[in-house]
Amino acid sequence: MIGLTNYAGVMESLMNSAEEKQPSSPLTNSWAKKQESSKSQKPNGVGGFVLVHAGAGYHSESKAKEYKHVCKRACQRAVDQLKAGALAVEAVAAALVELEDSPFTNAGMGSNLNLSGEIECDASIMDGKSLHFGAVGALSGIRNPVMVANRLLSEAQKGKLSAGRIPPCFLVGRGAHDWAVSHGIPPCPSDKMATKFSLSAYKRNKRKMELAEKMDTGHNQTKKRRQSSENGNGSGCLDTVGAVVVDLEGNVAAAVSSGGLAMKHPGRVGQAAHYGCGCWAENACHMNSYSTAVSTSGCGEHLIRTMLARECSAAMQSEDAHQALLEAMQNKFISSPILASEDRVLGGVIVLRCCRCVEAQPSQNFQGILVEFLWSHTTESMCVGYMSAQDSKAKTHISRLPPGTVPGQSLAIEGGVCRLTGVVE
Amino acid sequence: MIGLTNYAGVMESLMNSAEEKQPSSPLTNSWAKKQESSKSQKPNGVGGFVLVHAGAGYHSESKAKEYKHVCKRACQRAVDQLKAGALAVEAVAAALVELEDSPFTNAGMGSNLNLSGEIECDASIMDGKSLHFGAVGALSGIRNPVMVANRLLSEAQKGKLSAGRIPPCFLVGRGAHDWAVSHGIPPCPSDKMATKFSLSAYKRNKRKMELAEKMDTGHNQTKKRRQSSENGNGSGCLDTVGAVVVDLEGNVAAAVSSGGLAMKHPGRVGQAAHYGCGCWAENACHMNSYSTAVSTSGCGEHLIRTMLARECSAAMQSEDAHQALLEAMQNKFISSPILASEDRVLGGVIVLRCCRCVEAQPSQNFQGILVEFLWSHTTESMCVGYMSAQDSKAKTHISRLPPGTVPGQSLAIEGGVCRLTGVVE
Repeated sequence: MIGLTNYAGVMESLMNSAEEKQPSSPLTNSWAKKQESSKSQKPNGVGGFVLVHAGAGYHSESKAKEYKHVCKRACQRAVDQLKAGALAVEAVAAALVELEDSPFTNAGMGSNLNLSGEIECDASIMDGKSLHFGAVGALSGIRNPVMVANRLLSEAQKGKLSAGRIPPCFLVGRGAHDWAVSHGIPPCPSDKMATKFSLSAYKRNKRKMELAEKMDTGHNQTKKRRQSSENGNGSGCLDTVGAVVVDLEGNVAAAVSSGGLAMKHPGRVGQAAHYGCGCWAENACHMNSYSTAVSTSGCGEHLIRTMLARECSAAMQSEDAHQALLEAMQNKFISSPILASEDRVLGGVIVLRCCRCVEAQPSQNFQGILVEFLWSHTTESMCVGYMSAQDSKAKTHISRLPPGTVPGQSLAIEGGVCRLTGVVE
Repeated sequence: MIGLTNYAGVMESLMNSAEEKQPSSPLTNSWAKKQESSKSQKPNGVGGFVLVHAGAGYHSESKAKEYKHVCKRACQRAVDQLKAGALAVEAVAAALVELEDSPFTNAGMGSNLNLSGEIECDASIMDGKSLHFGAVGALSGIRNPVMVANRLLSEAQKGKLSAGRIPPCFLVGRGAHDWAVSHGIPPCPSDKMATKFSLSAYKRNKRKMELAEKMDTGHNQTKKRRQSSENGNGSGCLDTVGAVVVDLEGNVAAAVSSGGLAMKHPGRVGQAAHYGCGCWAENACHMNSYSTAVSTSGCGEHLIRTMLARECSAAMQSEDAHQALLEAMQNKFISSPILASEDRVLGGVIVLRCCRCVEAQPSQNFQGILVEFLWSHTTESMCVGYMSAQDSKAKTHISRLPPGTVPGQSLAIEGGVCRLTGVVE
């Protein structure tokens, strides 16, 4: 293993007006002795919280505005759903549709092209309430892959098909496309999903690849093949998108969508379609104190082999969320024995965990859902946005590794806390 | 949840002549005080052990002979490889090729047909030494899907592709087929992979489905849709195949291959292609005392959502292998909250765990690899076979749930112990 230079950013409380700094344990179970009138936090019966990401990869300063803007719009879409009384799973799907529709993200419209110059998308969604899951892989000709994943999830919840057949949770390729169309999801001509940007990136990558292969020709090919990793991920296109949501009933949901690695082989399926790897959501139950939701981004093969979404979700049952995520990213990802042969381990996660609680603080009395949200990445940057349905004010942020640290060997971690009142009992 | 009638069969030591009953802990670390000359156990530098399955599902008495015979041949193929000095991963692939080639199994030749009357196969393989993984999903027109999965695994071990691209670990559909052919794996016309049996099963299932759908037409469709689960899996074709191997260096490997559920939707991918769900293999390391290898079979969606292969592998680090597998099958599968809405949870596993050890017994002195092997299933039956490379004597067995117990709610569990001497240090 390479010696690692780790960076653990201080847990920042980046909060909107509905949020306040919360350094104490979220599980303080005593009632407040001092009552305080709360103007903005009166129960209103609608609410929830959403955290989205527009990829862990590289986000140029020149496009920072667009990345942040799409995160904001995605948050708004989820919050609109939550305000209309939708469950977390519907809200998370709505956020994903907005992220997929942006030509700046590598999902849905404007996805990376594969080796044959085609778009093949992966997406999945998980409902923490029912624990159902839906996924599509290598799907072409559908504008919003997450809608197909979501439809698979909801169809599976209806029970068995005719003659006792078990409904599928994962469809790929042409079969997935045809299933989508037969379930009322309109097809979209593939050429309409490519953008000027994705086409020019394809041409650039193709030239680069041909040049690299020319250089590789001849003796010592294996050695050169390994060395060429120094050029690794030059396209910078690791910007899978995803979101995690909690609704006011305390249900969580997570989703993820990706066009996959640039110049991938046709038929390659990445973590975004892989159970336990792209997203995870699990409501609190008798075994787990916290509801957790996770969405990942980065190099699909690294995220698959480490099952990063599920690992981070499991870690979130520890008391200190920040420390637990830091350790999970360090021990289960960067230093995982599974990825011991990799020189750079590239990925990022957004994480949300919450519990119903009653807190006593000298200055406040809080009864509701305490939401802790975090993001962490080993890539150069990760673009995130979040919003509470109680004030609909979006915060967006491009998180970057500190200068001088090495992507794939170091990590950044940040997050905040949000309190949801008006909880549905 | 439905009340469960569980059956835990007594751990049987079904051993060939190289095996002896071993009721004590496998981790006895003291040297023997009493030396004994060992005629048949002298180190010979080649060896290993293989356990295969021809599916957890329903195996008719009338075909028992064929099922057992193919298991025996598969064991022999793996052992031939081991004797030729192959590593576990090569031996497990060889066993799978034999299982796929049989027209009696639902893998490769003679696989179940999907809704469109086509064969689409899933397969995966994992190497416990490198922890690399290769998988194919919804693959048509290739006689031995496991060979493609194995080639993906070995290509990934070579490092990055040109221009720093990360090699895929999971390919599906047409892309998987084209990748296989471009890597020298010959295509096989789809019509040559169907058998008289698979074609007649397709026609029978199609009629049954049409009849069921006719009955469902009209009011109360959802209710009827659920009730029709009573007919569930009438085809009895849940016979995914798989194998687990340990070689004399102590490396483990696991593989699985399946034609998927009969009348599945085109593009549906089951557990056999899913990381952590179809197979798992992990050599012992500083965190794990035992090397473990697992292969699963049954209803893909149930096995995916519970990640059964990885769960069983993790459980095998407990001291008592039999008890650990029993608890994993009960708590992580039959009673998993993830499958709470399912009336029957259908699956089976074969498990192998091993450790290098030195044992003191009143009657013997053993230094080598102690292999514990088990199988467990909630389906009506499961066909298994096993063989040690030290005597090449195959044992085959059709394990059945005890009369009166309910498939999907009860389980059977059996296994044995084998000692490998002549270990490569």
